[in-house]
Amino acid sequence: MILAIDAMGSDKGPSVFIEPVKRFVRDYDAEIRVYGDKEALAALEGIEHVTVVPTTEVMEMDDGPLAVRRKKDSSMVRAVTDLKEGLADGVVSAGSTGALLSAGSLLVKTAEPVERAGILCMIPTKTGEPFALLDTGANASCTAEQMLNFAVIGKAYMKAVRGVKDPRIGLLNIGKEAHKGDETHQEAYRLLKEAENLNFAGNVEPNKVFSGKYDVVIADGFSGNVLEKAIEGTASFLMGSIQDALMNSGFLTKIGALIIKGAVKKVKGLLDPNQYGGALIAGLNKPIIKAHGNSKEEAVYNAILQLYRVVKEDVTEKVKEELR
Amino acid sequence: MILAIDAMGSDKGPSVFIEPVKRFVRDYDAEIRVYGDKEALAALEGIEHVTVVPTTEVMEMDDGPLAVRRKKDSSMVRAVTDLKEGLADGVVSAGSTGALLSAGSLLVKTAEPVERAGILCMIPTKTGEPFALLDTGANASCTAEQMLNFAVIGKAYMKAVRGVKDPRIGLLNIGKEAHKGDETHQEAYRLLKEAENLNFAGNVEPNKVFSGKYDVVIADGFSGNVLEKAIEGTASFLMGSIQDALMNSGFLTKIGALIIKGAVKKVKGLLDPNQYGGALIAGLNKPIIKAHGNSKEEAVYNAILQLYRVVKEDVTEKVKEELR
Repeated sequence: MILAIDAMGSDKGPSVFIEPVKRFVRDYDAEIRVYGDKEALAALEGIEHVTVVPTTEVMEMDDGPLAVRRKKDSSMVRAVTDLKEGLADGVVSAGSTGALLSAGSLLVKTAEPVERAGILCMIPTKTGEPFALLDTGANASCTAEQMLNFAVIGKAYMKAVRGVKDPRIGLLNIGKEAHKGDETHQEAYRLLKEAENLNFAGNVEPNKVFSGKYDVVIADGFSGNVLEKAIEGTASFLMGSIQDALMNSGFLTKIGALIIKGAVKKVKGLLDPNQYGGALIAGLNKPIIKAHGNSKEEAVYNAILQLYRVVKEDVTEKVKEELR
Repeated sequence: MILAIDAMGSDKGPSVFIEPVKRFVRDYDAEIRVYGDKEALAALEGIEHVTVVPTTEVMEMDDGPLAVRRKKDSSMVRAVTDLKEGLADGVVSAGSTGALLSAGSLLVKTAEPVERAGILCMIPTKTGEPFALLDTGANASCTAEQMLNFAVIGKAYMKAVRGVKDPRIGLLNIGKEAHKGDETHQEAYRLLKEAENLNFAGNVEPNKVFSGKYDVVIADGFSGNVLEKAIEGTASFLMGSIQDALMNSGFLTKIGALIIKGAVKKVKGLLDPNQYGGALIAGLNKPIIKAHGNSKEEAVYNAILQLYRVVKEDVTEKVKEELR
């Protein structure tokens, strides 16, 4: 298995990839190709199972879709091109979402009958069974047809990867009733309801997504991104507040805090983006993982691990089979 | 002080208002007028400082703006009409947001120069100083001009109510850079940046709202509602998960859990909608509080309390002064 890592897209610079890559090839049976500035990646030269692919251009966070054609020697475009040509089995990038989506759509293309790929995140629920949320930000604005399209991708994903027989699909909206939300969401509701072969369970409000009643939650890229980041931010704020409250209380509370540390840590991990690493750009012909731009070393490692699993379990092929 | 309560809008029926109203007139120096079905509210007859105003129509959750003109004898329209005519100093309603916003805009009108009212929620941050989030769902879709308008309301509110000298205003968006988001958000960014007398601090991503770097966060009603409900849902999910983890661990952890109970309870209250009660429809000439449709008795009580404070502190007049 050959994994391609775009090492130039992170807010933290290429250095954040060095240790995770070294560790990963020790822990797992995979070859890693790392794309980026030769000097910045010098520490990876000579390491077994690692190949540094020197590139001269960088996709900036501001770069959108058009930059894909312009920056042919960027680490991102080179990595995705190698994926297209079979020199790699999957790509991880922390670079511009818009550029990465375009690179994927232009080079490895969307899988039939998908017209627009979406970023798919898995989010845990009360029951322990997670749901797939998409799109979480590949598209800043979406049509109703694109949301229907996300439902098809999400369904295929949950069937293929998690063995859910007839995935229950919810539409993220600001109210339960069919007429709630703007016109696009009202239209998406109608399309989802009328669609054959989709187990549409109606609108789902953002405070109900953890109920375990939905296997797939469809969102326009804007509000899907708001939901995902709000979950992340709230979790971090709350866990931090609990830690502060415990540490700034009396001696006895501190003892109590020590005792429960393990139990709370497990819950903290549930919604910690450093734990889940990245998100799959779903609906493409080959696997690409988008990692957070501000990923720390742990998150980078977990994003590579996520790609490894997606490749090993042949997720993309299974989803394509479902789509057909 | 006379507070008007629309008792028919709640998902839980009028009975959820009985105990909170009884308790409130015992605890605070206020007269309460309760609008709704005479029989359902019979338990409030004869209680000192409480007047039941019998109404025959009910604004349903499905009812939108048009129903305001049609259902003249609904508890909601009667309450807002009495507010308009000076028979009450403020209104609490858990009914249809769209209908309530219309009733407010049609009857008590928006305050100059506001063209569109927004629902304003206060949300806590790391620093202990909360920020005002608006709109959180009064408008399912918003123009860039309306978002600018929300900034003006939010600024006036934070100056008037919390004494913030030059409120820092953030625009809720899916990325930091000016070009992020859909066209409406790009345009809103430009308008906010160019506006005189607005301390615009740029785009704020949903995971950064708790940073304490913003006094006002502006959102289109759809994503503002998603953010608010996502915060609520995540908090409830996490606190529930922590409770489960503590209770399903060994004996020692349970002891630890008992010790830290007080500290955790404080944090739980931070983001519990039952605690903060309702949200102000900001930008109107008179105070109207929108309570959650699924409010429990504690939440109803806190919504009445919120209205009481808004009236007592003359919030609406102070905001109007700032707006002028």
